[in-house]
Amino acid sequence: MRLEYINPFVSALSSTFRTMLSCELRAGTPQPADGDPPRFELSGVIGITGGAVGTLVLSLSEKIALRAASTLLMMESTEIDDDVIDAVGELTNIVAGRAKSELEEYQLSIGLPNVISGSAYKIRFPSNVQSICIPFTSEWGPLTLEVGLAAVTEPFECCPLA
Amino acid sequence: MRLEYINPFVSALSSTFRTMLSCELRAGTPQPADGDPPRFELSGVIGITGGAVGTLVLSLSEKIALRAASTLLMMESTEIDDDVIDAVGELTNIVAGRAKSELEEYQLSIGLPNVISGSAYKIRFPSNVQSICIPFTSEWGPLTLEVGLAAVTEPFECCPLA
Repeated sequence: MRLEYINPFVSALSSTFRTMLSCELRAGTPQPADGDPPRFELSGVIGITGGAVGTLVLSLSEKIALRAASTLLMMESTEIDDDVIDAVGELTNIVAGRAKSELEEYQLSIGLPNVISGSAYKIRFPSNVQSICIPFTSEWGPLTLEVGLAAVTEPFECCPLA
Repeated sequence: MRLEYINPFVSALSSTFRTMLSCELRAGTPQPADGDPPRFELSGVIGITGGAVGTLVLSLSEKIALRAASTLLMMESTEIDDDVIDAVGELTNIVAGRAKSELEEYQLSIGLPNVISGSAYKIRFPSNVQSICIPFTSEWGPLTLEVGLAAVTEPFECCPLA
């Protein structure tokens, strides 16, 4: 995966946490997510299509998900309910949307966010797609962002830009 | 979700299992997937964008995944390895691709298949999207297909067809 794809996602996540949650993130070193990168209890997953196809995975601990939902919903969330699930999905959607606008030349479209929850699950990419995992730390704890994108080599279906 | 969206996915799954795996499926009654539909050990997940946005989830037991991978790869698979994960992803991709071709008027695009694995996980849709779960039975055991699609109400970004 080309590095030019990654930076817009890192900036999008950091700016979303800063502006919407007043939570500063510190990005660690991006690394190939070989096999089984760390997953927290809740992972927002969103599909990307267009001039590149792939998936964004935002993985949060229960603690961060509750803090984020409480801030977004302006009411205390103390357990993982539908509102918290929706908040994690919406955060994932916002991060993907911000990154998309930075990658305008690829004419990306983003799908619906799904949220995977559980104590022990894996989210795997096709083995011919090298996804990149970026660990982040924050005052609320650690989180990870994983992005796997493959360039589309066939003629892109959308009409060329005027 | 409109029922016209569902039938192409049901046909696509049945025809994929019949033609590629020589396995006949019997579809049960589609039902709203409220909260927590049955999940098996492996779920192929693929994002859909275009004139409707959403996600397809194909959930298989380990037994079915191994049988399907053994047939597709023409060699016996006895444990969940990268080849089996890729086979589940590829099946999901083929089902989504066949359904897409039946829903041509929506100009759908499909993302990369991811595969979720684990013994206890949930895959949640945004609470304002009513996904539909279709249970299937087969000689290899039960499986489920879940589809959640939302119509896009904003002007569709792609150029109009000539």
